[in-house]
Amino acid sequence: MVKVAFQGERGAFAEDAAVSFFGDTELVTYRHLEDVFVSVVRGEADFGVVAAENSLAGSINETYDLLLQYEVNIYGEIKLRISHCLMALPGEKLRDIRTVYSHPQALAQCEDFLRRLGAEVIPTYNTAAAAKRIKEEGLRGCAAVASRRAAEIYGLEVLAENIETSADNYTRFFVISRLKAAPAAENKTSLVFSTKNVPGALYACLGAFANRNINLTKLESRPSKKKPWEYVFYVDFEGHVDDKVCREAIEDLRGRTNFLKVLGSYPRAKD
Amino acid sequence: MVKVAFQGERGAFAEDAAVSFFGDTELVTYRHLEDVFVSVVRGEADFGVVAAENSLAGSINETYDLLLQYEVNIYGEIKLRISHCLMALPGEKLRDIRTVYSHPQALAQCEDFLRRLGAEVIPTYNTAAAAKRIKEEGLRGCAAVASRRAAEIYGLEVLAENIETSADNYTRFFVISRLKAAPAAENKTSLVFSTKNVPGALYACLGAFANRNINLTKLESRPSKKKPWEYVFYVDFEGHVDDKVCREAIEDLRGRTNFLKVLGSYPRAKD
Repeated sequence: MVKVAFQGERGAFAEDAAVSFFGDTELVTYRHLEDVFVSVVRGEADFGVVAAENSLAGSINETYDLLLQYEVNIYGEIKLRISHCLMALPGEKLRDIRTVYSHPQALAQCEDFLRRLGAEVIPTYNTAAAAKRIKEEGLRGCAAVASRRAAEIYGLEVLAENIETSADNYTRFFVISRLKAAPAAENKTSLVFSTKNVPGALYACLGAFANRNINLTKLESRPSKKKPWEYVFYVDFEGHVDDKVCREAIEDLRGRTNFLKVLGSYPRAKD
Repeated sequence: MVKVAFQGERGAFAEDAAVSFFGDTELVTYRHLEDVFVSVVRGEADFGVVAAENSLAGSINETYDLLLQYEVNIYGEIKLRISHCLMALPGEKLRDIRTVYSHPQALAQCEDFLRRLGAEVIPTYNTAAAAKRIKEEGLRGCAAVASRRAAEIYGLEVLAENIETSADNYTRFFVISRLKAAPAAENKTSLVFSTKNVPGALYACLGAFANRNINLTKLESRPSKKKPWEYVFYVDFEGHVDDKVCREAIEDLRGRTNFLKVLGSYPRAKD
């Protein structure tokens, strides 16, 4: 049974993602996202499951920064529909709730519901951590925004479900590993590069793909952290590094960049 | 005297930015970033000062989303060197500090210092709010990460300064207004667009600038929030919408996009 690491507490959405990808397997949690990367690099875990982006809130910056920093491969992607529940100690009523705990992104995703509720919101480092805290500290008048799985794990009662503002709420996770994934029928590749400091540099880089009809599915910029107002660009595109046309595009791109790192090719997840 | 709105509490970094741009002026604070936009749209404030990006942590997503949503102009930009102080009630010693409060981004920027300190970190919604809380609640054994100005305003003692990991820590603020800025010697323009759903669409859009030797200084993607995994792109470039070449580029771009909104032309801030 493979060992799969994720950040947060048992019952975090990453656990739902891990179970949907690996089925019944051994799970190990870490407090910090970076520890998931370290665990995979050291071989303590076989795989890590890390959030990459949410369809409403956008990219998880820390994940992108860590992909640049650690030698891991993106081995797979998982798209998970995020459905938030409001949960509290058994016996609590919705009208009793004065304080709501959750991860800031989950709180933002349920903003309309929480504004109508009129409760104070308090950020926690993880959705499941909010549920765990309410249970362990026996917090009356408090609720957590988390997954149904978290309510089950921590013995809380669901007071409201599907409280997210938009039904188009998906999180895309990367599966990271020391292994490379075998090519599938449909693949995607992720890479990161920095442009040369000349006008039109980014345009020239994207030309390496456009001129070969390679379809970009995502472009994300992040600070280079080397010099203010310089950026690195993360690109996802359709195809596998072993496809001839992709290999050529990457070689072409390499000549137009200061720095290039292929993060991995992996089977494309269904939408 | 013009009235300038910003988010947070007195002593927030946005206050330093506002003072550097407007000098001595009337300041008004709002708890939520969105309220700054509303205040400017309604004419309750003449200007708003909102964080756009940090040179290490990246873009402030909420600001970008609100620029799309509200009818305001970007009237100016401000680049502020961010220097964090650790501050506590008078008489506290560094070795007494068990808990540190601040905005998650400030905590991240001081991660190395805080790890060595070994204190628990607790997120607050604003750096200055952390300082205010320590003062108002008389919290012993606690410290805030905030600006020197915040320490002065709330009567706290600075225990350590320049605690940020990187000296290359700048935040870029936008000045927003109902007014448009007069052209200066060097200008920048910001706009946002969505591409047509065809391969090479983003490449074609950037061509509108590259083919005219217009220099892009920033490209940022955000979820469209209309359909999962579709994006809008924010672009900053050198030049003014009234420059002939920029006007042509924008008209060219308009034909290649589904949606285009010019956010403003404004004098370029010195690096």
